Amino acid sequence: MSKKEKRNVIVGQSGGPTAAINSSLAGVFRTAIDRGYKKVYGMIHGVQGLMEGRYTDLSEHIRTGLDAELLKRTPSAYLGSCRYKLPDIHEDQEVYKKIFQILDDLEIDCFIYIGGNDSMDTIKKLSDYAILTGSAVRFVGCPKTIDNDLALTDHTPGYGSAAKYIGTSVKEIIRDGWSLETKNGQVIIVEVMGRNAGWLTGAAALAKGEDCDGPDAIYLPELSFDIPKFMEKCRQLLKKKASVVIAVSEGIKTPDGKYVSELGNATDYVDAFGHKQLTGTARYLCDVVAKEIGCKTRSIELSTLQRAASHSASRVDILEAYEVGGAAMKAADEGDSGKMVVIQRLSDDPYQAGTEVKDVHKIANDERMVPRDWITKDGTYVTSEFITYVRPLIQGDVAPIMVDGIPRHLFVPGFQEQL
Amino acid sequence: MSKKEKRNVIVGQSGGPTAAINSSLAGVFRTAIDRGYKKVYGMIHGVQGLMEGRYTDLSEHIRTGLDAELLKRTPSAYLGSCRYKLPDIHEDQEVYKKIFQILDDLEIDCFIYIGGNDSMDTIKKLSDYAILTGSAVRFVGCPKTIDNDLALTDHTPGYGSAAKYIGTSVKEIIRDGWSLETKNGQVIIVEVMGRNAGWLTGAAALAKGEDCDGPDAIYLPELSFDIPKFMEKCRQLLKKKASVVIAVSEGIKTPDGKYVSELGNATDYVDAFGHKQLTGTARYLCDVVAKEIGCKTRSIELSTLQRAASHSASRVDILEAYEVGGAAMKAADEGDSGKMVVIQRLSDDPYQAGTEVKDVHKIANDERMVPRDWITKDGTYVTSEFITYVRPLIQGDVAPIMVDGIPRHLFVPGFQEQL
Repeated sequence: MSKKEKRNVIVGQSGGPTAAINSSLAGVFRTAIDRGYKKVYGMIHGVQGLMEGRYTDLSEHIRTGLDAELLKRTPSAYLGSCRYKLPDIHEDQEVYKKIFQILDDLEIDCFIYIGGNDSMDTIKKLSDYAILTGSAVRFVGCPKTIDNDLALTDHTPGYGSAAKYIGTSVKEIIRDGWSLETKNGQVIIVEVMGRNAGWLTGAAALAKGEDCDGPDAIYLPELSFDIPKFMEKCRQLLKKKASVVIAVSEGIKTPDGKYVSELGNATDYVDAFGHKQLTGTARYLCDVVAKEIGCKTRSIELSTLQRAASHSASRVDILEAYEVGGAAMKAADEGDSGKMVVIQRLSDDPYQAGTEVKDVHKIANDERMVPRDWITKDGTYVTSEFITYVRPLIQGDVAPIMVDGIPRHLFVPGFQEQL
Repeated sequence: MSKKEKRNVIVGQSGGPTAAINSSLAGVFRTAIDRGYKKVYGMIHGVQGLMEGRYTDLSEHIRTGLDAELLKRTPSAYLGSCRYKLPDIHEDQEVYKKIFQILDDLEIDCFIYIGGNDSMDTIKKLSDYAILTGSAVRFVGCPKTIDNDLALTDHTPGYGSAAKYIGTSVKEIIRDGWSLETKNGQVIIVEVMGRNAGWLTGAAALAKGEDCDGPDAIYLPELSFDIPKFMEKCRQLLKKKASVVIAVSEGIKTPDGKYVSELGNATDYVDAFGHKQLTGTARYLCDVVAKEIGCKTRSIELSTLQRAASHSASRVDILEAYEVGGAAMKAADEGDSGKMVVIQRLSDDPYQAGTEVKDVHKIANDERMVPRDWITKDGTYVTSEFITYVRPLIQGDVAPIMVDGIPRHLFVPGFQEQL
């Protein structure tokens, strides 16, 4: 395809936001411009917004190199995100006709979607539909999720920064716990995101080092959670130390398959993909510990802070997110469709990694869990293999651009009102 | 007093930990050594630990300039803290005899206590007792509290770093809130520490800038909290925007004097000074909003993260904490007793401040509130005067010393076990 034939690109962000998703957006934009595309449109609130005709010209947002640097340091989906699930093609073709009409109207050659496994379902269906209808638009996915649960990729952009924030915050929480003595000791339970995969919760172990013991126990959602055994673990730990810190995944379930969070009185918000908003796991466990052991407790939910903490982003993560965005754009430019960019690790130490493209059909709707042998036999910690895996992903910093003592984010007047 | 007569110093940390309290400890140590004292002891868990004979020689902890830099960047009370309230002198002299015996045994000339208003009660009583008994030991207080509620000082070390963390995190939470659209909008309620004083909650307004509207409402504990009016405010805000972010103090009370947190099912942990552990305020309000308005809600407690986040400390704060520690040591060395060092602001812009010493009797057990005219008339925000006041205190960064991607803290093998 000769350069003069190139028309436009559209890019969207989908699923839960991260501290790195905008760095991928900056990468897509830069590579699209470098490769000679005329316009780079951004979907407002992903494919759901696109269907309502909501998009923006990204050249109005990224006008300078400084804008691109600000965008890389801006948390959350700059363009707005969505959790929209496309119908199956045989169920409802109207939705597809509508989307492809808009792509046609905008003279789109390449459609890049930055998201997790649910979002790759969108790339899969749209690329399938393009094949069925003979459309020349290429659809390529760019991985993103703090959950790190995408198949076929070594890890996902967004995970490293969240892991760094979790490790740092848990270490600070542990120190804070040393300060005050309490009569019967205290148990601090930190609740970490990750419905089914324990990548984020395991990152609490990053607090461990020469100057910190790390959390005293870590419970991932990969294994069923036995409350009596957990209580026994707390009792044992309290015999040895005054302040016990335990990290739990929001998604831990009792052996009969019930979320621990549901045992309390948490609200049950359910999104379009049927995922519940799980909170209250740590709170419920703290209540049980306080009641049965009679010690002081404190539950701490890292909540959306862990996915939005650009001020503590990992340099490796932000740079990889940028590269992966560029690689997705490059793949689409070179004719790939129905693909997702993956990161392949070449070496742990020194850390080296590159990108490849893989068939999105093998990725969409799948979830990659922490391997059983990266969790200790008794199920209360991660192994050194886990740490060797995650450590390179949290290296280096991306200094925030500070204005008046607070990190600056990219902002274009009037755009926020469109979100 | 000639230099050769100088003997030893003892320093303790008391009350809730902060990100700056160890910088004051480093300042006390440095000035004590510079002024020719032989040993600088650290009380382990404040005066409560001291009474049990628990102390350490700080020269074993701060051996190099690098150790001092690490200490300045270490959150939480390095020496351990306490919430011990001394009895009134006429009630129980045994406690005092015990403490003064230990001070005598350790050949102490100067007793420095880093803490908040409860801790200044300790300085007041010990210096009174010294006068009554003719002891030559000098007792000087060094201010510390994230709550910023000490009388007679412009502000307290620890506040600036907490304010910076709150402003930064609330800004990231606001951005995160833009990402996903929900049918009926969403209300995110951020719960900030500060039982009676709204200095920390007001700092949420620091999120406001050219690139962010800031939180949509801020409720300080200085004013009574009217739930129906709050609900009306939420309804009004939801008409104008899809994602509403509100900051509330953990200590807000209904007009009949009941903590909002008590309306939920929060646990009632009460410390030695009779203070309740207030949590669940945001959660309770989210439940009410979800029930009455039917929109998505999310409650976020900044919890101990806001007082322990050394990774996001303010340079002004950390340096002032260090200076104030040195000033307390200097005052004691020069013969002051029953005093606390205060910070006096000379100018907002350029920010200039110095230290003075004040009578601790005028400070102990008092609480300084946010002035009524620094809160808007309708009680739902802070005014520009508040921002002008707090803005200089969050300026500049103290880059963490990173090891393997995580901030390093000061650690001496074997010491943690003594805590």
